[in-house]
Amino acid sequence: MIIENSKTNNETEIRTIIEERVKAVGDKDLAALMSHHAPDVLTFDVLDPLQNNGADAIKKRAEKWLTAYQTVIGYEMRDLSVKADETVAFCHYLYRVTGTLKDGGKVEMWVRATVCLSKIDGKWMIVHEHQSVPFNGETGKASVDLKP
Amino acid sequence: MIIENSKTNNETEIRTIIEERVKAVGDKDLAALMSHHAPDVLTFDVLDPLQNNGADAIKKRAEKWLTAYQTVIGYEMRDLSVKADETVAFCHYLYRVTGTLKDGGKVEMWVRATVCLSKIDGKWMIVHEHQSVPFNGETGKASVDLKP
Repeated sequence: MIIENSKTNNETEIRTIIEERVKAVGDKDLAALMSHHAPDVLTFDVLDPLQNNGADAIKKRAEKWLTAYQTVIGYEMRDLSVKADETVAFCHYLYRVTGTLKDGGKVEMWVRATVCLSKIDGKWMIVHEHQSVPFNGETGKASVDLKP
Repeated sequence: MIIENSKTNNETEIRTIIEERVKAVGDKDLAALMSHHAPDVLTFDVLDPLQNNGADAIKKRAEKWLTAYQTVIGYEMRDLSVKADETVAFCHYLYRVTGTLKDGGKVEMWVRATVCLSKIDGKWMIVHEHQSVPFNGETGKASVDLKP
């Protein structure tokens, strides 16, 4: 029973981390958005390049993203699923990002997100993230207009 | 020490599952490729749609994929990283898929893969997978020509 309770507590902590992300994007709060990333985090992002290594590189990308919008960035999350043991956890969800870029471009797309965490010195840290949209094999275009 | 050994054993088991996948693709062996998926696996795939639910749906997609090539399917894996606790694990890697489709199309692209597992009845099962390429924000095209 102690193990089960601990597992539930871990899952609750991770849900909180993901919910804080939604708020951080809404607030365009870079420090809050980056507060749970491990120094050696490796990410596979929606846009090029193939991969991004380390919290410093990821922070620069996040800053560029948060400042690219002239409007609030809409970040609607659904279907969050979390699995956590004592020191290893993963979660996945879908989110719809909406807004208007400073160059006038309108964004409205559903993105798939997988977030993987390790408990380091008693604290859950994001060590790996994978975010993407699929592509259409016939046109070679990213499928930014799909809906769940 | 017992916990550490157990963790190492779990990581070794998961490495074996991923290595078996490479062999299963090379052999075009659908049963072997699907042998570690949980019945309720949810996948985010390289190609449309946004998500795929359940082992039956994923098996149909895998069969279509394995039979689409007139040549052997090259599946070169690199940078495999595995984290496992007692009942929860994740891993990520890059792979280069190569070959010639039955319609004559040549495939050569690097893909990002994240695989998440749960130990169910004492056996590691894949409960979630995320595979993708990023896209170019200016052209809207999937970036199938990137190299790590």
